[in-house]
Amino acid sequence: MTNEKHKDRWLWYPGDFEIRHGLLQNFQREERGFDWPAYWYMDDCHRNVKFKRYYFLDQPSMFKVTIQGVGYVEINGQKHPCGKWLTCPAGKAKIRIFVGHTSGLPAMFIEGDEVKSDIGWTASNFIEEYPAGWSPLYVDIAKDPNQIYYQKECVHPVTETEIGGGILFDFGRAVNGCVELISLDDHIESITLCYGESDVEAMDIDYCYYKQIGMTRKMKARKRAFRYLFIPEVSTGMVQLQVFHEFLSLSKQAAFSSDSSLLNQIWSVSEETFKLCSDLFFIDGIKRDRWIWSGDAYQSFMINQYLFFDEEINKRTILALRGQNEIKQHMNTIVDYSILWLIGIENHYMMTKDYEFLRIVYPKMQSLMRYLMEQTNELGFIYGRAKDWIFIDWSEMDKEGTLAAEQVLLLKAYHSMITCGDILAETYGENENYHTHLYQEKYQLLKQNLFDYFWDEELGAFIDCYESGRRNVTRHANIFAVLFDFANKDQQQSILKNVLLNDTITQITTPYFKFYEQDALCKLGQTNIVYQTILDYWGGMLSHDAVTFWEEYDPTQTGNEKYSMYGDPYGKSLCHAWGASPIYLLGRYFIGLYPTKPGYEEFMIQPNLDSFETLNCTLPIKDGKISLEKTKDKIVITSDRTGGTVKMNGKSYPLLAKQPLVLTSYSKINA
Amino acid sequence: MTNEKHKDRWLWYPGDFEIRHGLLQNFQREERGFDWPAYWYMDDCHRNVKFKRYYFLDQPSMFKVTIQGVGYVEINGQKHPCGKWLTCPAGKAKIRIFVGHTSGLPAMFIEGDEVKSDIGWTASNFIEEYPAGWSPLYVDIAKDPNQIYYQKECVHPVTETEIGGGILFDFGRAVNGCVELISLDDHIESITLCYGESDVEAMDIDYCYYKQIGMTRKMKARKRAFRYLFIPEVSTGMVQLQVFHEFLSLSKQAAFSSDSSLLNQIWSVSEETFKLCSDLFFIDGIKRDRWIWSGDAYQSFMINQYLFFDEEINKRTILALRGQNEIKQHMNTIVDYSILWLIGIENHYMMTKDYEFLRIVYPKMQSLMRYLMEQTNELGFIYGRAKDWIFIDWSEMDKEGTLAAEQVLLLKAYHSMITCGDILAETYGENENYHTHLYQEKYQLLKQNLFDYFWDEELGAFIDCYESGRRNVTRHANIFAVLFDFANKDQQQSILKNVLLNDTITQITTPYFKFYEQDALCKLGQTNIVYQTILDYWGGMLSHDAVTFWEEYDPTQTGNEKYSMYGDPYGKSLCHAWGASPIYLLGRYFIGLYPTKPGYEEFMIQPNLDSFETLNCTLPIKDGKISLEKTKDKIVITSDRTGGTVKMNGKSYPLLAKQPLVLTSYSKINA
Repeated sequence: MTNEKHKDRWLWYPGDFEIRHGLLQNFQREERGFDWPAYWYMDDCHRNVKFKRYYFLDQPSMFKVTIQGVGYVEINGQKHPCGKWLTCPAGKAKIRIFVGHTSGLPAMFIEGDEVKSDIGWTASNFIEEYPAGWSPLYVDIAKDPNQIYYQKECVHPVTETEIGGGILFDFGRAVNGCVELISLDDHIESITLCYGESDVEAMDIDYCYYKQIGMTRKMKARKRAFRYLFIPEVSTGMVQLQVFHEFLSLSKQAAFSSDSSLLNQIWSVSEETFKLCSDLFFIDGIKRDRWIWSGDAYQSFMINQYLFFDEEINKRTILALRGQNEIKQHMNTIVDYSILWLIGIENHYMMTKDYEFLRIVYPKMQSLMRYLMEQTNELGFIYGRAKDWIFIDWSEMDKEGTLAAEQVLLLKAYHSMITCGDILAETYGENENYHTHLYQEKYQLLKQNLFDYFWDEELGAFIDCYESGRRNVTRHANIFAVLFDFANKDQQQSILKNVLLNDTITQITTPYFKFYEQDALCKLGQTNIVYQTILDYWGGMLSHDAVTFWEEYDPTQTGNEKYSMYGDPYGKSLCHAWGASPIYLLGRYFIGLYPTKPGYEEFMIQPNLDSFETLNCTLPIKDGKISLEKTKDKIVITSDRTGGTVKMNGKSYPLLAKQPLVLTSYSKINA
Repeated sequence: MTNEKHKDRWLWYPGDFEIRHGLLQNFQREERGFDWPAYWYMDDCHRNVKFKRYYFLDQPSMFKVTIQGVGYVEINGQKHPCGKWLTCPAGKAKIRIFVGHTSGLPAMFIEGDEVKSDIGWTASNFIEEYPAGWSPLYVDIAKDPNQIYYQKECVHPVTETEIGGGILFDFGRAVNGCVELISLDDHIESITLCYGESDVEAMDIDYCYYKQIGMTRKMKARKRAFRYLFIPEVSTGMVQLQVFHEFLSLSKQAAFSSDSSLLNQIWSVSEETFKLCSDLFFIDGIKRDRWIWSGDAYQSFMINQYLFFDEEINKRTILALRGQNEIKQHMNTIVDYSILWLIGIENHYMMTKDYEFLRIVYPKMQSLMRYLMEQTNELGFIYGRAKDWIFIDWSEMDKEGTLAAEQVLLLKAYHSMITCGDILAETYGENENYHTHLYQEKYQLLKQNLFDYFWDEELGAFIDCYESGRRNVTRHANIFAVLFDFANKDQQQSILKNVLLNDTITQITTPYFKFYEQDALCKLGQTNIVYQTILDYWGGMLSHDAVTFWEEYDPTQTGNEKYSMYGDPYGKSLCHAWGASPIYLLGRYFIGLYPTKPGYEEFMIQPNLDSFETLNCTLPIKDGKISLEKTKDKIVITSDRTGGTVKMNGKSYPLLAKQPLVLTSYSKINA
């Protein structure tokens, strides 16, 4: 670690890299010939930054500063140009580097033996000073942090069909990249490229989402996501394409192989889906929005924990979503998405124990919580302001007055503020910045009133809203109350019976909320139901030849209407991050792995494997991994790290490092 | 005017153009091989903007949208690409245009008969909506508002001298532009260009401010300001240069010709100086900072009023200085510069009667005033916070505790808030946004305490500071109190005697504050003294062959030390905006012209022309001009507009439109 800390890297004002690239990401959307920047207020990085560090050298030492932008180097108050070898004198020296960039991220890199851009520099926006930001993706001076350096993979169509007066290429997988026109018959001036996530879309020349008109020889089209390409008015052999899929490589930490080939395929398509939606940030999907949505990201954090365990993409997504200090509106304009962002940080801390990151981000959590508290009433209930979107889900819900689901989320967010503040106080010492009295008061008030006003004893459930008098029950608030442990045992059972297993309560229709519902069902011990749902719902998509999981799936839609959404025949995203939720559900509830102390210092494995004949599975934990192998007569669990406990059938077994724990007929026989 | 309103123009979010170019301007500074972005927090324009307008057409009408950035057009909820002819249907239509720009100013231009980018569009940053911003400089679709289109003038050296082993070119004037190397002797690979505002600087190869090493044939150097160019190691005929001076043309509204050729030259060099420092914004000087400083701008507004009467440059400068809504620090980090910005807007309104601009800028005045009030104590006194710069002037001053000069400025700023709020309430109707009760209370409290704590009856003057007990008197607070009419007649006379005309009180040494001092002296009737000062101080610079007026002038410095400042041998700016103050002093106090109602609806001319044998002078007023001709036996004053009153020797005469008023022996003989 010490060596790592002393490695050169690009430095910037913390958060700026993520905010800058978040902006660029949210401007990537394209549709039918126009660009569609996301429809909310967007921050950019700072334009003017100064870096500072003190050195105490025995000998003078040379260094050279390279910057992105314009600026200069100051050594003990003397100004010098960048790009030249300079000398830091012996003794105490104050070095400052001023960098301005009018159209991108101001950043700097220092080469030198002693004076270099390693850990230890501060960055200031002329108002506040923090440890400088950096990313493991940018430790090479040749890699400008204003660019993203994708890996490229040449992909080839699996079929090429003459159809409808043209050629349809099926790549047999989702591709996110650039098409180049390598060669073209002499008599053809140019061609049209029609893209599709489905063959139907690609062949709909007039209405496909992406289309490139006038492709000429050697031309390279803009980066787009597709499985199919259709080129009208050509026949086989007239056109030669080259297609490169672009991606940021993430190291796969998990593996899953069971006796159910369907389930194995669900895992592997989930993995493929999730990989594709893990760009520099977690994006919703690769074809349509390509935007960073906080609700989607919240779920991606949970999937990531069981697949890549990539802490960096979590942090980048968290910082990009939040933007600069000042809050102008809710995240993606949605109140609940702001709240989920807060809760997600507690999750990230539990996963990583990264208190340095928590320290950087906590002030931004506090200001967001302040912003939320400003829209609570005397009962502590949060309400929507003009132009706020109280989303929760696309579902019929009684929204007259304050909403139960929103209150449950806010209650959990207070809890997250308290937890995070306490961690910082414990780690960095008591400090008024980390006081949580206010949140505790708010928490108590809200919890009391949530039950007084929204819990309907007669219905045995939370109602959407009490002001209308309609006592309407939907699943959403009840699901959140289960997930965040605000319902006691009796209430949980009541919710299970009266809501979750009650068919008269409107069904969840979006995979976004289905994620939470399955999560809650598992939590309440209904893994058998969830197992079947995974096979039916996700398996259903596979029966439609899905190579990635969709934004939404309705088994009753069997024709082309299955590709439509939001009133658009191809509006549905066929590669959508939340479609990958089986990975989380299987890891969290079937393998049953979760941290009980931050950073998996202690962790639990509570297998629920009744549905499996055999299973061979590896899952990541912080700085390690666990594996589980189930055969007919035994379960073998191994961890390469200490801290684990296995719980089965009411019994607990310690899991020692690198010592397989063997359970037979679900009792331990050998450690 | 109606026609003007219907002309096509580029539109943007109001203030964004100015903020964006203000950022670019403040990044222009260059010094000895490095760039020097201004050392404060700098805002940029918004990245994401939407424009909206409703149309009610009898017939469908075609239009085409061109944008700077990426985005789309929405007609009644349907999205369309930019750059194509679209149809706005008859009947009520809602048109929105979404424009994002990741590295510059988002802007749009619409061509069409009915639907076009004229006055009537709103712009939103997704939080607030205002009438869209525009500039008369950008009414042509071919002119991208991300660029500045300078006029270019080819300039030629007046002398070319072989000296010091090279050639020294003297252009005989200040040039701000680019040097191109047209031809070069075959045996020379490249040359070095050394620039200088003085010959001494240009010939100091090692230490001149700007130097271009390695100039090769056809190469064009970066835009720089200079009078002299020195090329070492060449002789006559070996090098051929082409030099273009770049400028934004401002129409000259004033003319001045008197019997004193020295004074005429002072006027004309002032004019040249001011023209050069009037870029897209008022900048401090053309060689060194090139930054937009609020204190300097405040004085430039006053000079502008008597020379160009260019309202646009005032507005651009005001908006650029203030930045976006959120205030991160004081303008240029200086508390008094924030306050002067507020006062300057009242001046601008008095000059222009532009209540539309006032309405746009008033919320930003209120938030700045809020920011100032947050740093006042229970006596109403403003104090500096950590990192605030309490500037006032480069002068010895007792700064222990709150400072008198700062309080006088704040008092005037409350007055400006009240005046501007009242104007808006009167123009747009009573509105809680325009309530000024709070400012009135603050004004009363501060005024009382200013006199109770800082006015020293015994000394007959304001002291710097009461907390130290030292009762130190400097000129600054006393000057401001006179200028802003906070001293009554007796106090004024006391200040004149005990401070302004008292040689034991430390002299003002900067032209910045000398401006205010001369202003105050004139206001107290001391035009004769000021006349002599103009001849001595500004005439003194001319005796040193000045072609523009300097940042500072000390008659005792006669050697090369006269070019030094801030510890740098060439640190002094030899073309500095505030050097042009004679134009203001002559116009305001000698011709005696000033508005008594906003926009010169009524105005006064109070000539003080004892020092002139003859004078022929034209000065601008809002939508017009006045001229004054003094000959041996009469003064003839003409205005092309109504509203004027001439006051001389205690008598008032109405000045009718286009009817010369003739005063002989200073009494009216003929109207």
